[in-house]
Amino acid sequence: MSAHDRVAASRALFERAARVIPGGIYGSKAPGFLVPGAYPAFIERAKGSRMWDPDGNEYIDYLCGFGSQIVGYGNERVDGPALARAADGDLLDQPAPVMVELAERLVGLVEGAGWAVFTKNGNDATTLALSMARVHTEKPLAVVAAGAYHGAANWCGGNPFPALAGERADIRTFTWNDVPGLERIFEEERGRIACIILTPYHHPTYRPQELPAPGFYDAVHRLCRQEGALFVMDDIRANFRLDPRGSHVHFAAKPDLWCMGKALANGYPISVLLGRAELMKTASSLFITGTYWMSAAPMVAAMATLDETGRLGGTARLVVLGTLLKNGLEASGRAEGFGARISGPAAIPFLTFDEDPNLYLNQRFGAAMARRGVFLHPHHNWFLSLAHTEADIALTVKRAADAFAAMRQGKE
Amino acid sequence: MSAHDRVAASRALFERAARVIPGGIYGSKAPGFLVPGAYPAFIERAKGSRMWDPDGNEYIDYLCGFGSQIVGYGNERVDGPALARAADGDLLDQPAPVMVELAERLVGLVEGAGWAVFTKNGNDATTLALSMARVHTEKPLAVVAAGAYHGAANWCGGNPFPALAGERADIRTFTWNDVPGLERIFEEERGRIACIILTPYHHPTYRPQELPAPGFYDAVHRLCRQEGALFVMDDIRANFRLDPRGSHVHFAAKPDLWCMGKALANGYPISVLLGRAELMKTASSLFITGTYWMSAAPMVAAMATLDETGRLGGTARLVVLGTLLKNGLEASGRAEGFGARISGPAAIPFLTFDEDPNLYLNQRFGAAMARRGVFLHPHHNWFLSLAHTEADIALTVKRAADAFAAMRQGKE
Repeated sequence: MSAHDRVAASRALFERAARVIPGGIYGSKAPGFLVPGAYPAFIERAKGSRMWDPDGNEYIDYLCGFGSQIVGYGNERVDGPALARAADGDLLDQPAPVMVELAERLVGLVEGAGWAVFTKNGNDATTLALSMARVHTEKPLAVVAAGAYHGAANWCGGNPFPALAGERADIRTFTWNDVPGLERIFEEERGRIACIILTPYHHPTYRPQELPAPGFYDAVHRLCRQEGALFVMDDIRANFRLDPRGSHVHFAAKPDLWCMGKALANGYPISVLLGRAELMKTASSLFITGTYWMSAAPMVAAMATLDETGRLGGTARLVVLGTLLKNGLEASGRAEGFGARISGPAAIPFLTFDEDPNLYLNQRFGAAMARRGVFLHPHHNWFLSLAHTEADIALTVKRAADAFAAMRQGKE
Repeated sequence: MSAHDRVAASRALFERAARVIPGGIYGSKAPGFLVPGAYPAFIERAKGSRMWDPDGNEYIDYLCGFGSQIVGYGNERVDGPALARAADGDLLDQPAPVMVELAERLVGLVEGAGWAVFTKNGNDATTLALSMARVHTEKPLAVVAAGAYHGAANWCGGNPFPALAGERADIRTFTWNDVPGLERIFEEERGRIACIILTPYHHPTYRPQELPAPGFYDAVHRLCRQEGALFVMDDIRANFRLDPRGSHVHFAAKPDLWCMGKALANGYPISVLLGRAELMKTASSLFITGTYWMSAAPMVAAMATLDETGRLGGTARLVVLGTLLKNGLEASGRAEGFGARISGPAAIPFLTFDEDPNLYLNQRFGAAMARRGVFLHPHHNWFLSLAHTEADIALTVKRAADAFAAMRQGKE
């Protein structure tokens, strides 16, 4: 590596940040989640599939605002109406009519859904789903897959402090795809389970992604039916990249409640809890509110994002791009003797090295790619967007070939 | 009332909404929180101090997006930079540099604060404050004033369901300003109290607002010091309307943690938890994250809103406007024999009738004013903004005089 500090401006900003913000940058954007020194800690602007950091470095971006960008940064067909809406009033005393249009559209689109409640964070929707399941079933427990991410609230988040442990007292965890383990929990806790919450497939951090094994969702349906428990699909990270009708359709799963967000509005802040018609009475009985939850601009953005996703080719197009990326990266890795493997759906890939479960090679590869102008997260799954082009993928694969070769020589 | 349905378009929208949204419109924007038939259920657009509903009715607005609008809807000095920022990228993979600038500015502005963590909902900040207090003190309990609103999460919200009651197990409530009652809790729960969370003054729904009694905050400080408990100021509803340095300065209170939001960014979705420098280590130890929490446009909006609030005269100007409104409304009510009384700070008024604690007169007055083109909430405190003018206030008072006269005749 040259003596030139390619992220000097990011570093200077981070030093300022560390004086007034705990950790400088916290949570999933903390520099330690990337590779400090190689990745920028800050991003200045973005357009389409590209981002620029405060040092002026350009990146082809495969994190897409943690999945939120599905039609690309600064997409004018989304920003045009959304920003015009914002100028006419975003947060109003009462909802704008677009709330009704968006609810109607989502209920028509998401297979099985009978109603929609708009929230803000993804975590608002997942937490509300659990409350609703508890109220509906009058039972306390929620079953969760170990390592699954449903937000940073204490019931699901990463705070292992004794003082907060009580907030996880009503959570039971099983290992993804382990049907006997899941059956054991439903047996041991019979009559006490309000719901199971699952992502459509397993996308833990620091690990290869896992698809549902054959029969897994059949077992989930059977156990929920026997227990009278609800099945909550946390589709926030995957939604609209696997199937426009909801990722459950892609995997033939039949949830009772759905949580969506992120790609729903191409990064405008909105999430939604959808539910089966039979649960509408329960949903009506809860006090659900947030000052920003009915703001109009993100709803207009969601309508435009749905249009634009279709116009740009939707999930089929993402599969084409993702397959090109997967094949190109795996072949480039193999050519230099690396067991680089892409796991997960084509549109939401993640690369790990078969020979290195500890992710040191991930960090070396991610750092090498960041230095070459490609933003590939070393610890978290990636995302394709409809702003990516075949040329972007080809350039990415070319840079990856160069990075793998450099890694082979220990000179990345 | 005439046979003409002045909110027919709102009503038609609501009927559509009720098919796909639980309750049609939920939470604080539910029509039942207003007076259905008199108030619009939907708002179409807004500018300055005015809003228009889907029937084309114009209102002078005194709810201000539940307090969020402090410099007026569609303020171009805020929207200009914020919407330009959004077009350049709002939600990015990493924070934009403006996060550092805003943290530095708030830490410099809010008296006593040493650091800032940006969140999204107000409730994200209040919930995080409690988690932080529990981690810091290694104690479980939070003390809350009965009827105080800190968000809709189950620990503080309005869901009185047995299945959710466990989430309030670690909350103790006292009556606002009741120092002996507060002392009793600190005595009974000695060694178990992590924090007390208070709004700077008491603004319950359905009730006159109450300012802190002399000596109240002295007692809070003394009890927290003795217990080693933290004092959390939930300044979300009042912030920047009482004192730019934080409402605690207005009341000579000395919190350890501050929650802010709403007026912070004139309706752009952002909240912030601020804390004393001594708590930065604890804050750094928590996992704090949300996909939308570091989005750049609301941070740019916050910077611009702080500038614009100052430019337009700030809290002093709000006091001038609020005092005119208070004097005008109370006098108009008295002239017709009503005991109409404004409680709370001048900039955050609420009107109740001394002769009617059940708020029937509030609903009649609110409905009469809505029909006359003034949006005054019948059950929730109001807000002044810097977009209001003396002419707005004069017109409001004129309409109020007409409404009071009509009420006196039972013909509003």
